[in-house]
Amino acid sequence: MKRPLILVTNDDGITAPGIRTLVEIAKTLGDVVVVAPDSPQSGMGHAITISGPIRLHPNKQVFENVEAYECSGTPVDCVKLAKHVVLKDRQPDLCLSGINHGSNASINIIYSGTLSAAMEASLEGIPSIGLSLLDYSHEADFEPCVPFVKTLAEWVLNNGLEEGSLLNVNIPAISRSELKGLRVCRQADARWIEEFTEAEDPRGQKYYWLTGRFSNDDEADDTDIWALENNYISVVPSMHDLTNYRAIKTLKQIEKL
Amino acid sequence: MKRPLILVTNDDGITAPGIRTLVEIAKTLGDVVVVAPDSPQSGMGHAITISGPIRLHPNKQVFENVEAYECSGTPVDCVKLAKHVVLKDRQPDLCLSGINHGSNASINIIYSGTLSAAMEASLEGIPSIGLSLLDYSHEADFEPCVPFVKTLAEWVLNNGLEEGSLLNVNIPAISRSELKGLRVCRQADARWIEEFTEAEDPRGQKYYWLTGRFSNDDEADDTDIWALENNYISVVPSMHDLTNYRAIKTLKQIEKL
Repeated sequence: MKRPLILVTNDDGITAPGIRTLVEIAKTLGDVVVVAPDSPQSGMGHAITISGPIRLHPNKQVFENVEAYECSGTPVDCVKLAKHVVLKDRQPDLCLSGINHGSNASINIIYSGTLSAAMEASLEGIPSIGLSLLDYSHEADFEPCVPFVKTLAEWVLNNGLEEGSLLNVNIPAISRSELKGLRVCRQADARWIEEFTEAEDPRGQKYYWLTGRFSNDDEADDTDIWALENNYISVVPSMHDLTNYRAIKTLKQIEKL
Repeated sequence: MKRPLILVTNDDGITAPGIRTLVEIAKTLGDVVVVAPDSPQSGMGHAITISGPIRLHPNKQVFENVEAYECSGTPVDCVKLAKHVVLKDRQPDLCLSGINHGSNASINIIYSGTLSAAMEASLEGIPSIGLSLLDYSHEADFEPCVPFVKTLAEWVLNNGLEEGSLLNVNIPAISRSELKGLRVCRQADARWIEEFTEAEDPRGQKYYWLTGRFSNDDEADDTDIWALENNYISVVPSMHDLTNYRAIKTLKQIEKL
């Protein structure tokens, strides 16, 4: 059998520890190509660079014996460049994005560069997994989740995913013995309660800096937040069709306005 | 009855012609507050500014007798600042985002700053409409759609929207007499076929610039693309829950891995 081709990207940048773990896992499963941002791109959502040029350079320093490129654009730009400039006729069998430093569970999926990269890959017809560890620190321990991530990636390589679907995987920051396994769930209906720090810069000009706290009132046991709080790795099948089908019927009356 | 409070934003920037049309419509319906980017932010998707400060300044030049602010951040930042810094206890009854110069139908919703701003407003509990005209030019004619947009905005003010729902409205660039009215539809399953222009900058360094063409193989008559091609204004109820519920059942087998 031909070795699978695995595209690896992230949003924390090519030198972040999380992507290193993912590359190591991917190397055991197939041929690996990395196209990742040259600087941190957290919170970039599905942004693309349209009003300016993008740079793309081979990077031979960060990973040993891996074809790797760093890109000046957003995570979604990385996937587009990977597909259309770097790989061209080589269609990846899998895209792994992450492992993000910090949660992308629940509503975080829409702000996340990591998950937007995975979604872009799914739009390109590549089965795709976005992964995040619930630890923002640079010293986060990615080791406990390795066997679970490998098993899941192998399953997707063997079984594929529904077209246009991707997996949003979040991993609790606990030891391997505490991890209970994978749990398939829906996105919890949680929110951010925003706050802005208001302060003055060194020139006396006022600025705002986004902060806030995550708030979950969705207490059902079929959500990603429930899974994470109960020591499971949450797996949410996600998609790019944002249509609220239920609302179509109610709204039909506006056609008569 | 208390006059409704309407928040207006966009992604083309506070000086773009499209937002001016929206402000004029909003003024006939209620009190208006504008918080919009100080520069074009097309293609920013749901990006937020987390690694740096954001500036927010009152702008008294662009609109007459309207409380308006320009913001250095993304469209989503604008909505967050509007809600938590500018308006605080004044909860808007409606958010209008746009009118965007260029289509945000189908898959474009995920790349669009205009629609991401509307989605952010819906997350803040504000009934919200993102609007786009299928004409990229600065000289686009926004007049033909005015009565339709006003009628729709009034309907939403009177009837509200399902919590967490927003409307993605796209308007064909045709005359008023050709416009057939509003059509409620689903997001067409279309794609971008990407291409990158590859060239050298003045210093001889290679760069890439994103281009591409929109491709729709979804020929059903219940989509936004169909509506637009048939001279309707398309209205897609959209939402932030990206869970692919259909896929959950199939995937359950990975819990046994």
